Amino acid sequence: MENKKSNFSEWYNEVIEISGLSDKRYPIKGMNVWMPYGLKAMQNIDRTIRESVDSRNFQEVQFPVLITRDQLSVEFEHVKGFEKEVFWVTRGGMEPLEVEMALRPTSEAAMYGMFSLWVRSHADLPLRLYQIVNVYRYETKHTRSFIRIREIHFFEAHTAHDSYEDSERQMRQYMDIWGEISSRLCLPFEVHQRPDWDKFPGAKYTLAFDTLLPGGRSLQIGTIHQYGTNFSKTYDIKYLKDDGGHEYANQTTFGLSERLLAAVIGIHGDDHGLIFPPDVAPTQVVIVPIPSKKVDVDSFAKEVQQKLLSQGFRCTTDDRENYTPGFKYNDWEMRGVPMRIEIGEREVTSGTAVLVSRHDRKKTKAPIEDVAAWTSTILQGIKDALTDKANKYFRENMHHICNLDDLAKTEGFVIAGWCGERECAEKIEERYEFGTLGISPDDSEEKSCIVCGKPGRNGTFSRSY
Amino acid sequence: MENKKSNFSEWYNEVIEISGLSDKRYPIKGMNVWMPYGLKAMQNIDRTIRESVDSRNFQEVQFPVLITRDQLSVEFEHVKGFEKEVFWVTRGGMEPLEVEMALRPTSEAAMYGMFSLWVRSHADLPLRLYQIVNVYRYETKHTRSFIRIREIHFFEAHTAHDSYEDSERQMRQYMDIWGEISSRLCLPFEVHQRPDWDKFPGAKYTLAFDTLLPGGRSLQIGTIHQYGTNFSKTYDIKYLKDDGGHEYANQTTFGLSERLLAAVIGIHGDDHGLIFPPDVAPTQVVIVPIPSKKVDVDSFAKEVQQKLLSQGFRCTTDDRENYTPGFKYNDWEMRGVPMRIEIGEREVTSGTAVLVSRHDRKKTKAPIEDVAAWTSTILQGIKDALTDKANKYFRENMHHICNLDDLAKTEGFVIAGWCGERECAEKIEERYEFGTLGISPDDSEEKSCIVCGKPGRNGTFSRSY
Repeated sequence: MENKKSNFSEWYNEVIEISGLSDKRYPIKGMNVWMPYGLKAMQNIDRTIRESVDSRNFQEVQFPVLITRDQLSVEFEHVKGFEKEVFWVTRGGMEPLEVEMALRPTSEAAMYGMFSLWVRSHADLPLRLYQIVNVYRYETKHTRSFIRIREIHFFEAHTAHDSYEDSERQMRQYMDIWGEISSRLCLPFEVHQRPDWDKFPGAKYTLAFDTLLPGGRSLQIGTIHQYGTNFSKTYDIKYLKDDGGHEYANQTTFGLSERLLAAVIGIHGDDHGLIFPPDVAPTQVVIVPIPSKKVDVDSFAKEVQQKLLSQGFRCTTDDRENYTPGFKYNDWEMRGVPMRIEIGEREVTSGTAVLVSRHDRKKTKAPIEDVAAWTSTILQGIKDALTDKANKYFRENMHHICNLDDLAKTEGFVIAGWCGERECAEKIEERYEFGTLGISPDDSEEKSCIVCGKPGRNGTFSRSY
Repeated sequence: MENKKSNFSEWYNEVIEISGLSDKRYPIKGMNVWMPYGLKAMQNIDRTIRESVDSRNFQEVQFPVLITRDQLSVEFEHVKGFEKEVFWVTRGGMEPLEVEMALRPTSEAAMYGMFSLWVRSHADLPLRLYQIVNVYRYETKHTRSFIRIREIHFFEAHTAHDSYEDSERQMRQYMDIWGEISSRLCLPFEVHQRPDWDKFPGAKYTLAFDTLLPGGRSLQIGTIHQYGTNFSKTYDIKYLKDDGGHEYANQTTFGLSERLLAAVIGIHGDDHGLIFPPDVAPTQVVIVPIPSKKVDVDSFAKEVQQKLLSQGFRCTTDDRENYTPGFKYNDWEMRGVPMRIEIGEREVTSGTAVLVSRHDRKKTKAPIEDVAAWTSTILQGIKDALTDKANKYFRENMHHICNLDDLAKTEGFVIAGWCGERECAEKIEERYEFGTLGISPDDSEEKSCIVCGKPGRNGTFSRSY
């Protein structure tokens, strides 16, 4: 397998292919096939998302994939942002359609006309909905599995509120939700308020969650948007107040995508293949029996598997014939199963099992009656270790610079004083193909701009996907 | 609410609207919004499907929604069947696409090119894949929620085998799978082999599962297709045999859709609204506390809820203020929750709960310590009762006729001798807008044709959706 550190891009493509996550040989560029193993991992990520939002009374819906040009055109600024980037359906059967329709690039235009029907009074608010669907972009740049594609597995939450304050509370709640999800995926991130010229079309402001892949490029893995009343005015989403008047709703959104899987692959894997955090792993524990002529290894393995399944672990036994245990170890390591259990003659005789964690290959001998408790402890330890390792790389690649020339030798996040003006950001961007991630909402330190010297705050810049 | 028996069509639309299953006010004809309650019911149906196929080693995948004209054109007969019925994407951004792309109407053309890459040797077979995705039809007829729409929630299984015999075994396994699913949904059905002129384009033969909605029209709710080597020859899906030669794979498919939800709604509901079978119900048990000033009804209700949740029941407590218990009973009955629990002063004092089944309003008094066991028994009883009631209507509407004129006064399934010729079927069809469902594979009784008098078998005809 490719060396992850020195050839990240090749390693990434190779590990996706050989572990069976996705097949990109489908004849349309940027539209890949979700293979069973990749789809299961993504469904596990979806489950972490659903658990977090469902517990906060979000409700799941599904809107149609098609949006008419009329729906999109309601918001001129919005359509302008997308017209060049979407797929257009222009014919139904053999006849041209009267109104062209776009494959949704995101669902504001699809949803908000319906919101205006659903929101009548104060009592209908807050409205908190989400959907997990595919969205589409007519991507002309180079595509990359799970990162830059034309058919994107997407989570989008949309809310409406009876005051700006309540919508701001929602923005803070998104941070809690995101905290839960990122922690289960063991992903480090920084929050950046995107500069105005890079915020979502129609948003008052956009906060993005940026992580860092090996090779030092940042990856945007989530965004939350404060819309204020920008969209509700355009789509006429208003409610009757207690005093009989009408008021426009304040709105927010929260978006996540299959980039979460890209981050999990890129950040946790190593030169032996994938390493899945336990919450993402399609298989959390694989049992590999080591054949013996003296004792019944297979039924002992079944007993262990049964103990783990009954405690809710996703556990399988690799009983393939014609493969050596060593081959199986490698195979499951490559596929990123966080823990394996080895069971041979010695284990059967002594009533134990050998538990091996994928990331450090540490072995633990556990008595069979405690195997579920040990599995739980070891999986938690794996989660902690993956988090620590990811955080370490993340922190090590956060560089404060005071001199523009330092950009040349810097990878990862570059933090520098910035006045907030686009002109100065562009000077930084152009120098070494850096992008402007924005300012951190929690960092109010004053800093003079590295370009113009005027007063400013810390801005973060990076090369990015 | 509309009377279900006399105004089924209006009843159907009304119950979907007021129970919050789907909103058809979306501005594209036949593309409706899945509302939270409807989506949950559909996801529960999907779960029953997944459980049945996963346990038989089917693996879930997801293919792209777009299929190029080239992919479709590989199989001329196939594209001919669909060209007039699909949405065509012809533009990406502002530019016309070099190759037009269709929104998948079904996924043979998307999948089988990839199958030809995946299937190499004997060891790759049988290949058993499925996906649950939306498919698209440019439907020009009158649309109807969950029954005739343009964006269809769809399950499709696709298999490849190393012999025709094995693909026939697959066809029989589909019958087992369908038996499980239909039984959990309490849906009666008949299997009909569709006449050749109505089989799936490219299939050797098609078996369809037909049920009956109130009003006497049949609804096709599932199909399985034997493709033989028709598609594998076109898409070049072949494998290396032990003797070194190559052989084309034999293929089958199995399709289900949101029509399952339509059938559940239409068959089980009554004049008070929906009735969900327990496996489909988003909420299986609703607890309605009857306020009391003397005892603490709410914490008693919580205790009951906790007992049920811990046993895996989908259970909620309706603690809305400003609504009477009577209002709540009606509300949840309308939404089809199969069982409610009433808890008032008397119940708290005596340590009991009143369990009421939705379909017959029968009340059972259960001691609180046994409430989970009683719930399980009652839900099973509801399932049996819904099945019996549905079967009864189904059987009562199966009519054997010996005279063409009897069609005038017949609803439901009409069974009549038929020689198998299209000409004779069309005479039956034209007479009273009946359609030909085909012959039952299990009924080999000889019968002379009701039209031409030649020897034949029993054919089934009906008005249908």
